[in-house]
Amino acid sequence: MTGSIAFTTEMSDLLAAVAPAAAADPDARREREARVVWSHLVEPGDSVAGRLVAALGAEGALEAAVGRSRVDLGDVSLEEVEEGRRRWMPRLRRQAVHDALATAERAGIRLVVPGDAEWPSRVSDLDAHAPLALWVRGEAALLARPQPSVAIVGARAATSYGDHVAMELAADLGGSGIPIVSGAAYGIDGAAHRAALAVDAPTVALLASGADRPYPAGHADLLERIARNGAVVAESPCGAAPTKWRFLQRNRLIAALSDATVVVEAGWRSGSLNTAHHALDLGRAVGAVPGAITSAASAGCHRLLRESGAVCVTNADEVRELLDLGGLCTFGGPDDDPDPLTDDTTRVRDALSTRSWREVDDIARRAGMAPQHVEAILGLMLIMRDAEQSRLGWRRSRTT
Amino acid sequence: MTGSIAFTTEMSDLLAAVAPAAAADPDARREREARVVWSHLVEPGDSVAGRLVAALGAEGALEAAVGRSRVDLGDVSLEEVEEGRRRWMPRLRRQAVHDALATAERAGIRLVVPGDAEWPSRVSDLDAHAPLALWVRGEAALLARPQPSVAIVGARAATSYGDHVAMELAADLGGSGIPIVSGAAYGIDGAAHRAALAVDAPTVALLASGADRPYPAGHADLLERIARNGAVVAESPCGAAPTKWRFLQRNRLIAALSDATVVVEAGWRSGSLNTAHHALDLGRAVGAVPGAITSAASAGCHRLLRESGAVCVTNADEVRELLDLGGLCTFGGPDDDPDPLTDDTTRVRDALSTRSWREVDDIARRAGMAPQHVEAILGLMLIMRDAEQSRLGWRRSRTT
Repeated sequence: MTGSIAFTTEMSDLLAAVAPAAAADPDARREREARVVWSHLVEPGDSVAGRLVAALGAEGALEAAVGRSRVDLGDVSLEEVEEGRRRWMPRLRRQAVHDALATAERAGIRLVVPGDAEWPSRVSDLDAHAPLALWVRGEAALLARPQPSVAIVGARAATSYGDHVAMELAADLGGSGIPIVSGAAYGIDGAAHRAALAVDAPTVALLASGADRPYPAGHADLLERIARNGAVVAESPCGAAPTKWRFLQRNRLIAALSDATVVVEAGWRSGSLNTAHHALDLGRAVGAVPGAITSAASAGCHRLLRESGAVCVTNADEVRELLDLGGLCTFGGPDDDPDPLTDDTTRVRDALSTRSWREVDDIARRAGMAPQHVEAILGLMLIMRDAEQSRLGWRRSRTT
Repeated sequence: MTGSIAFTTEMSDLLAAVAPAAAADPDARREREARVVWSHLVEPGDSVAGRLVAALGAEGALEAAVGRSRVDLGDVSLEEVEEGRRRWMPRLRRQAVHDALATAERAGIRLVVPGDAEWPSRVSDLDAHAPLALWVRGEAALLARPQPSVAIVGARAATSYGDHVAMELAADLGGSGIPIVSGAAYGIDGAAHRAALAVDAPTVALLASGADRPYPAGHADLLERIARNGAVVAESPCGAAPTKWRFLQRNRLIAALSDATVVVEAGWRSGSLNTAHHALDLGRAVGAVPGAITSAASAGCHRLLRESGAVCVTNADEVRELLDLGGLCTFGGPDDDPDPLTDDTTRVRDALSTRSWREVDDIARRAGMAPQHVEAILGLMLIMRDAEQSRLGWRRSRTT
């Protein structure tokens, strides 16, 4: 372990406890330790750290950051590293890392880093702004599910109309197996999470604070229930306080973890518009629920409809239509011609039987496509009821 | 006069009374008489009649229709004329024409045909589907005003929300000098007309019946007030009953007479969507006012936002923005590059002085543009408060 915070045995034990699936391979272990340290050094979205880690690996980047190595810095300039060092080094405290790990261990919070099976590949669209690690309370595997997910977000100062719509959408979409992602805030976020829980749908809450700190405090019980039935996810380590910056960066994660973002109610300057714009920047579909023009709580939604590529959505089916576009886009990127993507779906469908169950690897071979890509398309077909899944594998629905 | 309904002296006197500005020129008089007859023969939007009149003039087309001439029929085929003749000839009754003229004369209804100063050039965008004549009760000159006008239309079964919004928009837009066009129906239409009247704004009602027949009957007083302060316009001659077909064709005229159409509330299959689609077909701007997704009366508006090029509008300023686009489009057509149009506005602005008043012809000469085109742009600049008008002419606003 590098720097002045070489992991103690106790810390290594704690890390092993919060990342039980971690490989025994010493290199992988040191890389994971370095990610934990980085998680403490940076504010979310630090693209210099992101580029440095991408170029040198987390451990190598850390050595460069503490100034111990003068290796090639990739595309990061020496000035950037020196400036970064000034904001990172004041946070380099072994005790803080130890305490965060101990808190995580006590609270049953898991560490997930790139390479883990639970790591959500969707966040790689954030490039240098992608998180370096995620802290997850609950079912971390939910993050890497190939099925499309929907973010339902909106104003804290929601009206009863907004609450009602958020619940209807979340219950309907969640009920059809689509994970509901949101920010656990009062208002729309809370309504979406609650409705998902009510229909036993997977739901994911992204926090601006550490995963151990329920925020808002009034949602401590709700977050507890989300952790039991879904996942509470934070980018900052345990103990971190929610700050304005972290809220904005949390919004980018909500957008990145979802295949479509739906804004139910939003004031003219609502933070949900920030989430929507992150989604648009990522080429993800954005839906806006209209409301009365006399309601200030819908002004932000109307603004999205007027000023951005947001689509007017008025029911869950229309959100599913968004997924059909947005979900596929995540494989190909927003600028690709959509036809090849449709072709991919056709190839997966051709590789399925309506009678016998087939495993993903078998389907991938028949389709001549990567298994991960096939799995993603199967997830989509499941939602669209074009495919069925059992413990024996997949088959095509007879009705389609 | 052709056919079996050569105008009697009494009919010619009646015609002179309902079209006082008509030229004494015998050719022009016979052409006008033929238009009156055509107005009785066709249902609105008869494109065979439209093309025949375009090719041969109204009188020549009538001779061809009664089978008296075997002239070149332009781009109309003999089969089309023969088929047209079967639907036109049963209506060829002198008494009907006489009665309609007598009713028009009694009710103070004016006949307006192409070539009259009052003829609205905007309807020429309808090509072969353009009306052959218009019957106007009230201020016919309103139709040919160069200023942009806005159609405010919507559901008969409006909610109090829709009524409120229609009134707010009509009062604000009408109050800034923009004529409000609508269909005089119960609900949104009526609210728009009433609000325009309340702020002394010009307002135009398009009827599916003859201009003498108030429809709906419950709006007889409202139509009376519109006629006194604006114009009540019909394509079918006096005495004509409102039919389903005429309502649909009336909708095309609402769209054609307006530079933008705003749908305030509309059910999923509302007739207002028909008006909106006519406007879109004509390349005119269409605005849709959003509402609660729980309100069936807004479902058609949301459908427009999802399925067509309608723009989400939430206040009068946003409708004025539509005019900036839609109004200019009427000069250039929807497929033209918008830049030259903006250039035209720049040229008109350059030709204006901020100090001295200039007449349109003078401005047109300075701008090197057609006076009619200049007048249209000046009308737009007046609305946008970029220009001012007095009896001495026009000048640029000092504030811009």
